[in-house]
Amino acid sequence: MSRWQPDSRHRLQDAALELYLEQGFAATTVAAVAERAGLTERTFFRHFADKREVLFANEDALRERLVDAVREAPAEAGLRALVAAGLGAVVDELQPRRDELRRREPVIASQPELRERELMKLASWTEALEGALRDRGAAPGDAQLSAQSAIGVLSVAAQRWMVASGDELLAAFVERVDAELRALLGSA
Amino acid sequence: MSRWQPDSRHRLQDAALELYLEQGFAATTVAAVAERAGLTERTFFRHFADKREVLFANEDALRERLVDAVREAPAEAGLRALVAAGLGAVVDELQPRRDELRRREPVIASQPELRERELMKLASWTEALEGALRDRGAAPGDAQLSAQSAIGVLSVAAQRWMVASGDELLAAFVERVDAELRALLGSA
Repeated sequence: MSRWQPDSRHRLQDAALELYLEQGFAATTVAAVAERAGLTERTFFRHFADKREVLFANEDALRERLVDAVREAPAEAGLRALVAAGLGAVVDELQPRRDELRRREPVIASQPELRERELMKLASWTEALEGALRDRGAAPGDAQLSAQSAIGVLSVAAQRWMVASGDELLAAFVERVDAELRALLGSA
Repeated sequence: MSRWQPDSRHRLQDAALELYLEQGFAATTVAAVAERAGLTERTFFRHFADKREVLFANEDALRERLVDAVREAPAEAGLRALVAAGLGAVVDELQPRRDELRRREPVIASQPELRERELMKLASWTEALEGALRDRGAAPGDAQLSAQSAIGVLSVAAQRWMVASGDELLAAFVERVDAELRALLGSA
């Protein structure tokens, strides 16, 4: 085996997900994950802090895409267009990972500590989006509420997308959930 | 000291909050909390699973108030009125606890594990509200989105209320944040 393993990160993620589904998250050790991936525990710990973090490996990259998309949106973009640009960037990253995300979902749901961690991820995206919107001139209160509402919409849309049987795009789910929320809040 | 201590739960909560603020959450032991409250560790563990749970002691009672208020709302109440009834019940419980909540806030913010736990609390309220709305006949999608949006509004309103300098009621913050969100989402 060559020392240079450009895909060891992915192999570890795949192996972890497989084992968590097969035998449960609690029963799976880092040693077992490394073995399944054909790598050493040392390599595992070079990539991930622990067996929980394997499931959240893309969190930072996605948050950066979200923030960059808001930052790079056209100068004339209003608050809603800025939010849409940010969500769109995340959706583009998630769409090709549908199969992995569908397998990941029951693992997350199975353990309160993983659900907590998932909520922290969404909170960190909300905070990042809020900051990016403020950087683009949004009033602090508007930035906070828009960010929270947008990540809420994304989260609900992604949950529905992951359990849906067809091949409808995540973007379509986001659009529909967004419209539903507006209708719910507008029907005073 | 009499064996019957009806207020030991509150004394432990007060002592814990005092110590967490004075010397930090991480540095405070259950033994120190019990000592400050003039009680034994055994009494502590009769009331709380660990030093984290002291800070979340009212979670279940509040969730029950929320659900009961939705359940008991008038038969003719629409989705929005049901949500308002639920939030109103929680607001009524939180309002008299403002000083305690203001002291609690920086403790929660100081530790990622406490922030995770706080997010789980909000998620559990969201789920409970969603279930209560469905029980009152709301469509599942509407119940999910309404609950998520409502608890989001409550959370933002409570954050603003806790740092506000005046004596304005939490209910007024909730009303304003709700109106802001509707305006943000309605201004297509």
